[in-house]
Amino acid sequence: MILLDIIEKKRDGLELTGEEIGSIVGAFVSGELSDAQMSAWMMAVCCRGMTEREISDLTLAMMNSGGKADLSDLPGIKVDKHSTGGVGDTTTLVVAPLVAACGGTVAKMSGRGLAHSGGTLDKLESVPGVCVEQTMEKFKSIVMDIGVCVIGQSGDLVPADKKMYALRDVTGTVKSIPLIASSIMSKKLAAGADAIVLDVKTGNGAFMTTLDDSRKLAREMVKIGSNLGRKTVALITDMNRPLGMAIGNGLEMKEAIEVLTGKVPLTDPLVKVCMQLGANMLMLSGLADSYDDAKESLTAALLSGQGFIKLRSMLEAMGGDVNYVDEPELLVQASRIVPVCAEKNGYIGSIDARKLGVAAALLGAGRFRKDDVIDPAVGILMNKRYGDWVSDKEPFAYMYVNKEDNLEEARSMLVSAVEMTAEAPAELPLIYDVIK
Amino acid sequence: MILLDIIEKKRDGLELTGEEIGSIVGAFVSGELSDAQMSAWMMAVCCRGMTEREISDLTLAMMNSGGKADLSDLPGIKVDKHSTGGVGDTTTLVVAPLVAACGGTVAKMSGRGLAHSGGTLDKLESVPGVCVEQTMEKFKSIVMDIGVCVIGQSGDLVPADKKMYALRDVTGTVKSIPLIASSIMSKKLAAGADAIVLDVKTGNGAFMTTLDDSRKLAREMVKIGSNLGRKTVALITDMNRPLGMAIGNGLEMKEAIEVLTGKVPLTDPLVKVCMQLGANMLMLSGLADSYDDAKESLTAALLSGQGFIKLRSMLEAMGGDVNYVDEPELLVQASRIVPVCAEKNGYIGSIDARKLGVAAALLGAGRFRKDDVIDPAVGILMNKRYGDWVSDKEPFAYMYVNKEDNLEEARSMLVSAVEMTAEAPAELPLIYDVIK
Repeated sequence: MILLDIIEKKRDGLELTGEEIGSIVGAFVSGELSDAQMSAWMMAVCCRGMTEREISDLTLAMMNSGGKADLSDLPGIKVDKHSTGGVGDTTTLVVAPLVAACGGTVAKMSGRGLAHSGGTLDKLESVPGVCVEQTMEKFKSIVMDIGVCVIGQSGDLVPADKKMYALRDVTGTVKSIPLIASSIMSKKLAAGADAIVLDVKTGNGAFMTTLDDSRKLAREMVKIGSNLGRKTVALITDMNRPLGMAIGNGLEMKEAIEVLTGKVPLTDPLVKVCMQLGANMLMLSGLADSYDDAKESLTAALLSGQGFIKLRSMLEAMGGDVNYVDEPELLVQASRIVPVCAEKNGYIGSIDARKLGVAAALLGAGRFRKDDVIDPAVGILMNKRYGDWVSDKEPFAYMYVNKEDNLEEARSMLVSAVEMTAEAPAELPLIYDVIK
Repeated sequence: MILLDIIEKKRDGLELTGEEIGSIVGAFVSGELSDAQMSAWMMAVCCRGMTEREISDLTLAMMNSGGKADLSDLPGIKVDKHSTGGVGDTTTLVVAPLVAACGGTVAKMSGRGLAHSGGTLDKLESVPGVCVEQTMEKFKSIVMDIGVCVIGQSGDLVPADKKMYALRDVTGTVKSIPLIASSIMSKKLAAGADAIVLDVKTGNGAFMTTLDDSRKLAREMVKIGSNLGRKTVALITDMNRPLGMAIGNGLEMKEAIEVLTGKVPLTDPLVKVCMQLGANMLMLSGLADSYDDAKESLTAALLSGQGFIKLRSMLEAMGGDVNYVDEPELLVQASRIVPVCAEKNGYIGSIDARKLGVAAALLGAGRFRKDDVIDPAVGILMNKRYGDWVSDKEPFAYMYVNKEDNLEEARSMLVSAVEMTAEAPAELPLIYDVIK
């Protein structure tokens, strides 16, 4: 039983060959290796780790487990962007149109939210009519016309990851740098990008809570990208608070529209992170020589409204009702808006971003199970930020509510997410590191 | 998801509470925890280990997962004996009757062979008519009458172990001292013994190949027994060769009968190990004050034929046709006997006992899958031992064959199991250690 030997080899902490890793992944996709066997192997990977070479081989095996998007007939360098998942992390909806407005080609496949973290597909679907499942032909024709399209991952891409992730989620094998890095990179590579900018979140609302782990994950992914011939850069960005003020799908779409229509100052954390991500995308695309040049182009695209036009055109091309884009209040028509106050006066000394994400999901903005149905109108709108002074009479957040279920649980989760301090807390960095 | 937290806690190398271990085992037996989740947890146990306290708690949780045999209405101290599994390891068939002949009470539940190792139930069934599945009432009445009965484990005992073992076998999680120790001890404890003598095999034909691992396993099991209030002793015995000359079910039954009818010298390794095991069983039963006293009683029981009478009576009470016991040649009526010679002259400098077990299984004496059917008449009879000089014309073993399938494979496996050397090898110890 050769497959059993491979499981035992990893259990014993030995390095697997590319062929052995290919056998495990192939046999799992074909059904020859059972869920129980794959779970045991993945737990052995969690406990024993993998070398850089093993991680690249695992990524390759996963990438080759299904179809691959061929974007070679699209012009220029196809640039992708990926976030490891956070709370109020609305960057794709801002950056992708801005990069397109600067001449970039963004043909991107995105995911859905799970647990406390949001997903771009759910946010896109907050605009009625938008269809995130498009044929490859339609997808490419939208990119050709507009320069940007964001859709769901095509069904035949990286089946190994789908099967592995479904298991990891229930077997305690999510938290493993080799498994996370290969899962992300196999999808990015199969989706056909030439260049990839990774946004590795770090902090209490991220999947990697420590800076050290986030750095390790970022390094591994950049190495995989380089090993497999793609230009790859990773930013490590803060997730010890929600990045934007909105947590919830319509609320985040509305916030993105507000950014792209100049209603949010350029000094806003969400805008700042978007500018850094976008600048790196433009540089990898060969459309800017320096960070400053890139940022200048992006700022111009934002202020001129060209970025907004790209987003609007894309949503329209995907079937969306642009009335909702032009009048974003329509996106967040909840039956009531409930203010939430802190228990005492003070500075917001820390925020547990994960709890905010869970509270939004409790209101119906997210999923605890894959088949939970999302309500695009609900969620949380922060009224105050990390470091702000708040009285106990003044709401630090508003809940957008359509159902009374879980309301009290969400409220107390929100209150417990915020620690009030007598002194103003030290400022948090927004971007910790850029790894090339 | 509390169960998921427990999996992750062990993944991260932390010590689990008794309650957490109980939850995992209980949820697995009830079906709430899936095979994939249990496999992940067991792999985490393989990689991270368990403390002595955790192993005792796991044993307890497994023991309490089903029914327990109540032997309290049988007289005296009920003594059990367990071997961790070997090749040509016919000890139970010799020791259990001898201990009964000396006044001991041996109410024992035994297992079947798997892979290269034999199982007592299969050996018992080589006597036509013997039924190893008896009701608890019948089992106890046989013990009451004769002093000894060996049956299969009752269906409702330790269901957790059955489910866990089926998974471990295919997920690379067999080789883990906490999992092995708890599997063995939960069954022994549920089977109701007051005192337990463990025969931990060590060497190339054992599941623990190194003396160090065997010692660790023995120590853990003795600790579990003491922690849970049973007198427990472990012998560590050699399995760098088959213990007896016979490998195969009828052949081993015949060998046991030959020992008990005085046809095998007391200096034979099988007899010596049986005497040590039996002496420890008598001492734990309070039927002998010293090793020498115990050995004297056992020798007398052997030479007087009282041990043989116990075996014969037990097999008869279990439905066996005693003609086969009285004329043991009937047990091994294979269609042909094939001599096997070494490739060159020399001393038998080493024997790979596992290969001998696999060769016997290839002939039909063992199982590669749980539902393989065993042929009681086939197997291997060694003609030479470790350290003997053999010419390449002289068979070192005979194959008892009923089907030509796999015959050549079995023959070459046998030949490759034996290394011929120019010099006589150093003697091997039979018993490495006694752990109390």
